[in-house]
Amino acid sequence: MDLVDLSGGTEIISYEECRRLLRSQSVGRLGVVVDGRAEIFPVNYGLDGDGILFRSNRGTKVAGAVLGDLVFEVDSIDVDARSGWSVVVHGRGEDISHFDGAALKGRAEVPWTGPKGSLIRITLESVTGRRVTPEGTGGTS
Amino acid sequence: MDLVDLSGGTEIISYEECRRLLRSQSVGRLGVVVDGRAEIFPVNYGLDGDGILFRSNRGTKVAGAVLGDLVFEVDSIDVDARSGWSVVVHGRGEDISHFDGAALKGRAEVPWTGPKGSLIRITLESVTGRRVTPEGTGGTS
Repeated sequence: MDLVDLSGGTEIISYEECRRLLRSQSVGRLGVVVDGRAEIFPVNYGLDGDGILFRSNRGTKVAGAVLGDLVFEVDSIDVDARSGWSVVVHGRGEDISHFDGAALKGRAEVPWTGPKGSLIRITLESVTGRRVTPEGTGGTS
Repeated sequence: MDLVDLSGGTEIISYEECRRLLRSQSVGRLGVVVDGRAEIFPVNYGLDGDGILFRSNRGTKVAGAVLGDLVFEVDSIDVDARSGWSVVVHGRGEDISHFDGAALKGRAEVPWTGPKGSLIRITLESVTGRRVTPEGTGGTS
């Protein structure tokens, strides 16, 4: 395996394409600051209009950090091909557990089953995406 | 698709198993704090003894944040099976570009080719891992 700088050969992804890529996946990584330090958690997510929904069943510190500025990253990377993409969402988390259940079924794009836990909606402030292709090519993976 | 709280049904992974899982993958997500906010970047990594090596070719702010407390997360998750694992490393990044090239070939476990960029080594402070299995089962995926 070679150690590759994945930021080389970067192409900016349009907002519309970022939205499509977010719809194409269902697990992302949530980043928050806890005690001055970055923490990352993989979460299963769904989309609710422009928002990103996930369930959180974490301890108090993380539960607090989720209700504020956060980053959410979704990617698909093929190391062998040295290509892939990453979409980064900046936004704020809001606890919408009070909408959980029947009331939400009409407005969300995903069914609502599985274990409980706070239901968090990320309101998007910015969405950026980058696609990495092997240097010198214009791949479309 | 169901929205599942991936923290349910969690099993703690031993340090030795965390090391094995880190060796099994080659892309992880780096988390740093930039301007008080968490940022996440996917990076291709290699191992150097107990350390994690990656190349960074980012802007000044991120380059600075990488040389300090950071978190590095590696996972493999199967949403359909509601199972997977996540290993989280806390540590500090150090620029070891001065060791890049021939001098490093003798001590690193990965070959050193590909585009340049600062070579960063994460010195591990803690390694924790969690395996998620469908509730009520003891899967070994």
